[in-house]
Amino acid sequence: MSTDQNIFQAIISHCKEYGFIFQSSEIYDGLSAVYDYGQNGAQLKKNIRDYWWKSMTQLHENIVGIDAAIFMHPTTWKASGHVDNFSDPMIDNKDSNKRYRVDHLIEGHAEKLSEADAAALLATMDKLLADNDFAGLKQLIEDNKIACSVSGTVNWTDVRQFNLMFSTQLGSVTDEASEIYLRPETAQGIFVNFLNVQKTGRMKVPFGIAQVGKAFRNEIVARQFIFRMREFEQMEMQFFVRPGTQKEWYEKWKEERMQWHLSLGIDPSKYRFKDHVKLAHYADAAVDIEFDFPIGFKEVEGIHSRTDFDLTQHQQFSRKKIQYFDTEINQNYVPYVIETSIGLDRMFLLVICSAYAEEDLSTPEKQDSRVVLRLPAKLAPTKLAIFPLTKKDGLPELAQQLMTECKPHFYCFYEEKDAIGKRYRRQDAVGTPFCVTIDHQTKEDGTVTIRYRDTMEQERIPMSEVKNLVLNKIA
Amino acid sequence: MSTDQNIFQAIISHCKEYGFIFQSSEIYDGLSAVYDYGQNGAQLKKNIRDYWWKSMTQLHENIVGIDAAIFMHPTTWKASGHVDNFSDPMIDNKDSNKRYRVDHLIEGHAEKLSEADAAALLATMDKLLADNDFAGLKQLIEDNKIACSVSGTVNWTDVRQFNLMFSTQLGSVTDEASEIYLRPETAQGIFVNFLNVQKTGRMKVPFGIAQVGKAFRNEIVARQFIFRMREFEQMEMQFFVRPGTQKEWYEKWKEERMQWHLSLGIDPSKYRFKDHVKLAHYADAAVDIEFDFPIGFKEVEGIHSRTDFDLTQHQQFSRKKIQYFDTEINQNYVPYVIETSIGLDRMFLLVICSAYAEEDLSTPEKQDSRVVLRLPAKLAPTKLAIFPLTKKDGLPELAQQLMTECKPHFYCFYEEKDAIGKRYRRQDAVGTPFCVTIDHQTKEDGTVTIRYRDTMEQERIPMSEVKNLVLNKIA
Repeated sequence: MSTDQNIFQAIISHCKEYGFIFQSSEIYDGLSAVYDYGQNGAQLKKNIRDYWWKSMTQLHENIVGIDAAIFMHPTTWKASGHVDNFSDPMIDNKDSNKRYRVDHLIEGHAEKLSEADAAALLATMDKLLADNDFAGLKQLIEDNKIACSVSGTVNWTDVRQFNLMFSTQLGSVTDEASEIYLRPETAQGIFVNFLNVQKTGRMKVPFGIAQVGKAFRNEIVARQFIFRMREFEQMEMQFFVRPGTQKEWYEKWKEERMQWHLSLGIDPSKYRFKDHVKLAHYADAAVDIEFDFPIGFKEVEGIHSRTDFDLTQHQQFSRKKIQYFDTEINQNYVPYVIETSIGLDRMFLLVICSAYAEEDLSTPEKQDSRVVLRLPAKLAPTKLAIFPLTKKDGLPELAQQLMTECKPHFYCFYEEKDAIGKRYRRQDAVGTPFCVTIDHQTKEDGTVTIRYRDTMEQERIPMSEVKNLVLNKIA
Repeated sequence: MSTDQNIFQAIISHCKEYGFIFQSSEIYDGLSAVYDYGQNGAQLKKNIRDYWWKSMTQLHENIVGIDAAIFMHPTTWKASGHVDNFSDPMIDNKDSNKRYRVDHLIEGHAEKLSEADAAALLATMDKLLADNDFAGLKQLIEDNKIACSVSGTVNWTDVRQFNLMFSTQLGSVTDEASEIYLRPETAQGIFVNFLNVQKTGRMKVPFGIAQVGKAFRNEIVARQFIFRMREFEQMEMQFFVRPGTQKEWYEKWKEERMQWHLSLGIDPSKYRFKDHVKLAHYADAAVDIEFDFPIGFKEVEGIHSRTDFDLTQHQQFSRKKIQYFDTEINQNYVPYVIETSIGLDRMFLLVICSAYAEEDLSTPEKQDSRVVLRLPAKLAPTKLAIFPLTKKDGLPELAQQLMTECKPHFYCFYEEKDAIGKRYRRQDAVGTPFCVTIDHQTKEDGTVTIRYRDTMEQERIPMSEVKNLVLNKIA
């Protein structure tokens, strides 16, 4: 049994052992803060993505989806503010050549001070950061004699901004090659397409545009497994509303997104809202949905009232009018935006952490335990495992008959090796909600044993009812 | 009506006008050879992707999916040969600074020569290219007085290799930052994960690993709409087999992939196989599935017998043993690989081109025409459009009732404005296979008019039968 302290490590190991998540390029000793999804992880991730996509687009008549490219025109990121502001102030120690984020370096030093001194130091730092006063920050580090942990010296370079966007060169002909960025968020792909979608789709405000896709951030401190990665996937929806109505839509989406989480049957006490203390320059309201991970409460989704900031910026930088004519009030305006932004990888981690359980099944006679993933049935990578009790007497043929019947409708898994108990436990570990065993009685009366993952209960039902039973449970 | 010559242009315009495909970052005047999928395109693309994924993974017990990152360890691309070989020889004109692909430059010149002279020139070029004789290629250009089309001079630089991979810097700390590439193909993500998947999934050869994802190539000549893009999406499956059996599996997959295409109901005469004349260094057999696009027969999918080249290379570069122990023959070996590789964007273009029709509906009394997308019903972005005949008399409420019933099962579209005929034509243009109109008779006897996209026929059926009728047609 894992203790609270090491449950996160146990989950990471489980993800590897059962084909959910591998370190990227592991045979080459990995790539920092990048991960690959294995055979079970890829399917679980796809199921989460599809569940979000359906709930956002198919079930909302006024939300459509798009799929914009990762590459965007570089001016996009000037307009959005990412070129100028999406960066951290860094400082290098000249003796060790080690680079630090300035705030991390100062915070690390503050931990060694008395409470009062630490508070004073951090208050000074916050003010300098807010003022972008880099010379002042350097002075603060030197005045406090904050040393490099490697060289032990206070021989520092100037403070410089380090942008978190990855850049690359597009085009091969030297004179037309241009530096572009890998998008650090999917939202801008929606904003620059606002008019195209609104016009070709004849959309009426209020309406939303949803998108799922990869984004990239060259994080300085990338850690905590898939919680903070350099390559990750976002599920974002931008909802365009009439100016002045943003507050009510913000409240509505805040509520609706929490309901979406709870619709998966995950323990509500693990969730909480956390209002942003300091609002970003583009927001007039913002809240995080946080989840109680084994590493503490962490953000999994944000709901942001972004005002008309983005569309107005793109209007200005592109010199193209980005407005909507509202026939109900006979007015032209730049719509306001409510954004819901959730990290797919974080949601994956949330689902796994919430599902992972180590259970003591010991009896006075016998020690026993199991690891089970109590995944919501609709998200489980495999819905049904089908086992012939033995490899002979026509049992595999009967099992294959059931496979053929069920396979077109949901993911099935077939296995004929090892003891049934062992096969059950392997399915527990990958979260398969239902197992069916075909035995000699099946040949006589057409019934099979169905075994439920969560209760471990077994019952006999007609083989002909298996398909519909599973379909009902995963709907 | 479009002529054969401009049908491709008409399709491109249609894709833009009806929200299938927009130029990327269009408000900033676009990004060359990059495109965004709009509200209808995103859904059509997702439906194609899901259809492939289901047919490969859910319907094959011995194929699993993975989802590896775009970022991979740079040694991956040394092992695969992309660092050394994934490049084109280029030459710059010193006066115009214009860069050319050497083969394009010489081929352009050959077009102006007599047939015999052209053949001789191209034969010489092919030999020099095969020998990587760059000095010889430059000499050939100078000897033939091939001039730059801009400057008109023969003042050339040396011939140099230009790699097609995009590169970027991973990591922020200078001394540990490393140059990495955006993957130019998804296949290597499968190969480096071969052992992880095989072991954690207890897979037995023969088995396959499927993957869908973005890949990036800095194409010199990127054109023909979404046919050749710098950012694109691949659907690849690598099937691992016992050495010596690759020929039969190659034939099997060649056949099965063609059947997949034909299962969509697309005209078989538009497809053909084309064997590779010159095999890549890793292949012992290779064939393309070509489709008759309006721009001619072009590759949409490749089936390649890749031998044990990739796994052997990764074994060598990683110094880790990548072998499989085959219990049936008690032997260790590096499996051979059959690859099926299809471009998702090309498949999208194929589906659109095959579906697009301009129809003359004129009668002696009246000129009329329509543009219709005859998309396979299972791929159509919207399955059912629901129209109340008028906006009053409770018809919208009845229509919304049907929306509520159908929406959880498939994509529905609701519209109450404009004449019914106009609404039908708009749905024709986006490929919606079924439209239902609610009128006053519906209130009396519960029947509705269903209208079929392809035949334009209409019939009255009970509203209660609509959901199942559509479900049966899209299954």
